[in-house]
Amino acid sequence: MIKVSIIGASGYSGIYLAYTLLLRKDVELVHITSQSNAGKDISEVFPSFNKINNGKRSINFEKLDEKQIACSSDVVFLCLPHGKSSLIISSILKLNPLIKIIDIGADFRFDRLENYELNYEKHAAPHLNKYFVYGLADVYEDKIKGAQFVSNPGCYPTGALLPLLPLIKAGIINYNYPVIIDSKSGISGAGRSSANISNLFCEAQNSVRAYNLWKHRHLPEIKEKIYNEMFLHRYKSASGKFQCDESSLHDESEYLYKPEYYPDIIFTPHVIPVIRGILTTIYIKLNSSATSENAIKDIYNDFYKNNPFIVMLENGILPDIKNVIYSNICHISFSKNGTYLILVSAIDNLGKGASLQAIQNMNLMCGLPANYEIRDFTPYP
Amino acid sequence: MIKVSIIGASGYSGIYLAYTLLLRKDVELVHITSQSNAGKDISEVFPSFNKINNGKRSINFEKLDEKQIACSSDVVFLCLPHGKSSLIISSILKLNPLIKIIDIGADFRFDRLENYELNYEKHAAPHLNKYFVYGLADVYEDKIKGAQFVSNPGCYPTGALLPLLPLIKAGIINYNYPVIIDSKSGISGAGRSSANISNLFCEAQNSVRAYNLWKHRHLPEIKEKIYNEMFLHRYKSASGKFQCDESSLHDESEYLYKPEYYPDIIFTPHVIPVIRGILTTIYIKLNSSATSENAIKDIYNDFYKNNPFIVMLENGILPDIKNVIYSNICHISFSKNGTYLILVSAIDNLGKGASLQAIQNMNLMCGLPANYEIRDFTPYP
Amino acid sequence: MIKVSIIGASGYSGIYLAYTLLLRKDVELVHITSQSNAGKDISEVFPSFNKINNGKRSINFEKLDEKQIACSSDVVFLCLPHGKSSLIISSILKLNPLIKIIDIGADFRFDRLENYELNYEKHAAPHLNKYFVYGLADVYEDKIKGAQFVSNPGCYPTGALLPLLPLIKAGIINYNYPVIIDSKSGISGAGRSSANISNLFCEAQNSVRAYNLWKHRHLPEIKEKIYNEMFLHRYKSASGKFQCDESSLHDESEYLYKPEYYPDIIFTPHVIPVIRGILTTIYIKLNSSATSENAIKDIYNDFYKNNPFIVMLENGILPDIKNVIYSNICHISFSKNGTYLILVSAIDNLGKGASLQAIQNMNLMCGLPANYEIRDFTPYP
Amino acid sequence: MIKVSIIGASGYSGIYLAYTLLLRKDVELVHITSQSNAGKDISEVFPSFNKINNGKRSINFEKLDEKQIACSSDVVFLCLPHGKSSLIISSILKLNPLIKIIDIGADFRFDRLENYELNYEKHAAPHLNKYFVYGLADVYEDKIKGAQFVSNPGCYPTGALLPLLPLIKAGIINYNYPVIIDSKSGISGAGRSSANISNLFCEAQNSVRAYNLWKHRHLPEIKEKIYNEMFLHRYKSASGKFQCDESSLHDESEYLYKPEYYPDIIFTPHVIPVIRGILTTIYIKLNSSATSENAIKDIYNDFYKNNPFIVMLENGILPDIKNVIYSNICHISFSKNGTYLILVSAIDNLGKGASLQAIQNMNLMCGLPANYEIRDFTPYP
Repeated sequence: MIKVSIIGASGYSGIYLAYTLLLRKDVELVHITSQSNAGKDISEVFPSFNKINNGKRSINFEKLDEKQIACSSDVVFLCLPHGKSSLIISSILKLNPLIKIIDIGADFRFDRLENYELNYEKHAAPHLNKYFVYGLADVYEDKIKGAQFVSNPGCYPTGALLPLLPLIKAGIINYNYPVIIDSKSGISGAGRSSANISNLFCEAQNSVRAYNLWKHRHLPEIKEKIYNEMFLHRYKSASGKFQCDESSLHDESEYLYKPEYYPDIIFTPHVIPVIRGILTTIYIKLNSSATSENAIKDIYNDFYKNNPFIVMLENGILPDIKNVIYSNICHISFSKNGTYLILVSAIDNLGKGASLQAIQNMNLMCGLPANYEIRDFTPYP
Repeated sequence: MIKVSIIGASGYSGIYLAYTLLLRKDVELVHITSQSNAGKDISEVFPSFNKINNGKRSINFEKLDEKQIACSSDVVFLCLPHGKSSLIISSILKLNPLIKIIDIGADFRFDRLENYELNYEKHAAPHLNKYFVYGLADVYEDKIKGAQFVSNPGCYPTGALLPLLPLIKAGIINYNYPVIIDSKSGISGAGRSSANISNLFCEAQNSVRAYNLWKHRHLPEIKEKIYNEMFLHRYKSASGKFQCDESSLHDESEYLYKPEYYPDIIFTPHVIPVIRGILTTIYIKLNSSATSENAIKDIYNDFYKNNPFIVMLENGILPDIKNVIYSNICHISFSKNGTYLILVSAIDNLGKGASLQAIQNMNLMCGLPANYEIRDFTPYP
Repeated sequence: MIKVSIIGASGYSGIYLAYTLLLRKDVELVHITSQSNAGKDISEVFPSFNKINNGKRSINFEKLDEKQIACSSDVVFLCLPHGKSSLIISSILKLNPLIKIIDIGADFRFDRLENYELNYEKHAAPHLNKYFVYGLADVYEDKIKGAQFVSNPGCYPTGALLPLLPLIKAGIINYNYPVIIDSKSGISGAGRSSANISNLFCEAQNSVRAYNLWKHRHLPEIKEKIYNEMFLHRYKSASGKFQCDESSLHDESEYLYKPEYYPDIIFTPHVIPVIRGILTTIYIKLNSSATSENAIKDIYNDFYKNNPFIVMLENGILPDIKNVIYSNICHISFSKNGTYLILVSAIDNLGKGASLQAIQNMNLMCGLPANYEIRDFTPYP
Repeated sequence: MIKVSIIGASGYSGIYLAYTLLLRKDVELVHITSQSNAGKDISEVFPSFNKINNGKRSINFEKLDEKQIACSSDVVFLCLPHGKSSLIISSILKLNPLIKIIDIGADFRFDRLENYELNYEKHAAPHLNKYFVYGLADVYEDKIKGAQFVSNPGCYPTGALLPLLPLIKAGIINYNYPVIIDSKSGISGAGRSSANISNLFCEAQNSVRAYNLWKHRHLPEIKEKIYNEMFLHRYKSASGKFQCDESSLHDESEYLYKPEYYPDIIFTPHVIPVIRGILTTIYIKLNSSATSENAIKDIYNDFYKNNPFIVMLENGILPDIKNVIYSNICHISFSKNGTYLILVSAIDNLGKGASLQAIQNMNLMCGLPANYEIRDFTPYP
């Protein structure tokens, strides 16, 4: 029995974690915290929890008590606004140095601390940063398997990196052109606690807009992960900025300080009136028009071989948010025209983009198969 | 292993049955039919089936082949427009007299054939009608347990009868006043195949309207079931039309021919812009203002004792469609003011109102617990 | 040129007033107030105002300055939460005793002060109450024509009273049965300023629920207006409680203190996921089944003769919210079955139910035709 | 009084034309045709037309009678699927050679017939093609003013060309990089008559997807118009493919046959669950990072000087579909980062993208100001 606690359990990703974990027979949910709902039974706040899974035990929201959680949990999920997790994790670790941590927030997503501090704020537990593995679970499964600390990726980065990384590794992208990522996200991405006027039903139902041009905080996260892969696979890169300057790169520290070696990545998030889901449309230039569609298909199939959650769509079917919501699945398709390639991916921002990927990470950290008891549920209609 | 076939599997209730049954380890889906999609894999038509439940076997839609289905299935679900099931069932039964049948359509919902023929059309297999049990599974569990043939209730009747029947049995309703049922249904109730203009997104998103005043076909279904209960429990009725004339009722045949003994039931369906769900608001008059809220609570708790799917909401929480969609759960609350009582229920028209109740029926017919592997899934948000 | 000010102009009804009035050539919008947006141009807060009506002048939100408004305005609209209007109106009147006031809030909707105080709070300007006319403009046009002070009806009362009052006047209702009003309202009824979690897009899109059973504040408003009409037309009432006790009613003061003379009125509001609109379904009992559909049609046509905003639908067409949004129109239909009658009405809660009815009132108060320059705009789709 | 007929008046753009024109006092709607609704009054099919504009005259849908229309109309709008307009226009012109024609369909949108035939089908009235002016009314006002025949632009091209053409004319784009147009459209773009399953409410509400990658028919329309402008303003182009090869271009015929001179234009349409609106996000590369934001602002302000329908948003406000629906307005903003520029535009696909731009064209063709009696109506919320 895996004993699990969730800190920040009444937001959208926290409650989805609670819901999913309550359905598992091998997991015991020991503590769920919520400052605003402490003392209330989960079914009182979320009536859909009544008789979930045929009357499973009830559970109360509690105020955060780090000691209780540290002592009684094998795994802790943190679903908090950025900046909040670091201190809590420090405290918990002192009380239970072996506890497994999965942070859904942004505090430990960056390999390089300065990237966090540049884009968010001064880090509250910088000494812990290097211990965290980036939990893009379908790509970094091997690292996550042995990990005690995993930082769950952002939702936009998940939707962008899953289709991009195989091609970066394969070295078929021409980096003299920008990689353009145009993402369309449902409104739950804005969270539940921060009730602001623009997320009201009456404001949002007819609203479609871009926001945070050039400056969304998920862009530096996407960049860092892409640059990491480019560095790692630099010998496979057939052309482009990075490859040109490659000879001068001797070690990681050097490359990391030369962002000018790297390609331009443009990311534009949009808000669309659906509750869940991110559709990501990516425009890239190939090194060669000779790269065939079959070759690209092989790259993906090889990269995601035996992966239970990545679906490469075929026969002209394109990803649609409605086909992946409430699941940990990512649908991907690509379409080539000359040297241009369009990638399209669809994920559930709260499922694959948050809570279900977090459970996939938990599975791996606990020695279970990635897809152990992750019951994808995409009802239709 | 229960071998199951679904006839009419590409409509909303059929595909939801397929989805749910594919998740079960004790069920083998042997045939699913669809005239328009025959020959295609289920994932090609419904991409969300890709890698469902970690890559479970694929299955092709087929043209209807009664012989194949009869010979290879233990249980058959029929999800067809009314009038279509009767002949198919006749044929299948000749080939396999022991096969279990669950009809989601309307053909066998009425105890009295004339009620069907009055409201639908001439019945195509009248000799079979008497063998069917009305599958309102949370009420008629005992009858369903031994049944080979079950007729699944309509969605509106399910939402109306579940809150009403306990009170009818308890005899607390004053039938000198009408029972008024005001239902609000999501659009999936109109089905998938009959694409008509008024169900287009652009027509439906801002549309809220009543329809079929006085004459929706679910009204006679509701009436028959209420009248049955009234007859059955006539000694418990403390007042009202029925009770008054009770002495003159000697047997069932007599009462059934005297509809004037029965109360007025008014049913108004409305369409609202949600995909799934029915909210039913019912207005009744009590025999006595002395009937306390606690007494009513006891009536419900007693009637639905140990029931895994009926949730009586408390603490002023009222049913909300969003808390029951994608589930087999029915939320009920009541509120009393003097001698008036308002009942409110919420169900998923495709879940409790169709496919999941059908699986609950299958469980009972197969000797399994009602809630065996019915994984309610009401995600939030 | 009518000089108009709007107090509370950044809520949904206030901004709709501003929008509509800016399109009029005979109106000059002199002041619009908003505590939170003071100092900003209207187009900055609401970008749809850019180039409205081909570049009409811009206007800034201001902090409330009663003196400025009193001195420069012929007409003032107040769009404030209840309890706020009274004091402001008192102040303004002292500065400009001739100013015309239209209050969209609830402060002056009741003829009898105690009804307000019982259901809202202690009244802050009780001496002013008797000067206000109830602005149900399609019914009380004659009174409004000479009025300086008009209180705009609530949205639910507007949707309920417009179909009910003609039948009450005609005396065809059997009041031994309750009048049951089941209303379905869009979410904008909850307003814009009070951003609460349940009105977030992610909470509301799949949500359909009843609320405030028995105790919504619009119920006493509906009751008072119905009782007024019953008293007024008491000789026309053919049966029912009221008529029975009529002989004992000598004057208005007596009847007002005997609520037991009056029929039961049940009102259940529901929230449905549309931005605008209220659909109201009303269940009544007729005195006689002999009252023909044609007779009822005549009652309506006579009552609303030459009325530009009431549409009696025929040929089986039923009201639909989508056909009246963004308009001052009320669609009504009725359907009879024996002695039961179902009335259905559809209005825009912000149009006919608030801002456009307020402008209709302004027109009447200013000696203009009711429909002067009220450009109904119900786009399709 | 302008006498107007609408052929194909029961589709979304046709009925919107009818609605808008019925509000005008200087227009008489003489015939509106609908094959499926012939004989019915417009209010019977579209109940929102009841008492529109205070009871304006009713009008019946008729079967198409070219002779009647030709003889009684000054202006004819055609709202038909592509391929249908050509023959009808031929017939009408023979009967009334002076009649003004505005075709909302695609038949006459291309300057070069081969572009139409390549992307649609064999043209049914090729001899007429050269007489049609492309009705992008905010750009080609001068040409439209003298025109008898106008072809209304496609909705996507309108949303893409309005922000792009000023920059093309200004010569600041580096055409060595592709121009990438990522558009998000509401569902009404799919029309009303072609009821297909994917546009049902239940299918569309949760659906967000790209479609027709590389091959949407609006792409060649966009390309032709961009290439036209590039050729026209070739001396102003500071760099890029086109400029490089410019010396070899002697006349139009030559350039038109050398598409290799032209830049790559990528266009990806997406469907999102709103009724109306297109948000277009465009990614371009500048010739020089020295081009300042102010310079770009000047380019736009100069290009759209005194234009009543183009709104350049400032102060960080980005276009949002909800701020332009039901209007003829186009909101545009741009954001620069180094040599990259993102353009965002928002239009109503049925307003500016179809019917209201068509009326703007009618105004110009009839010698009226562009914005004559085009009452933009973007209600909030």
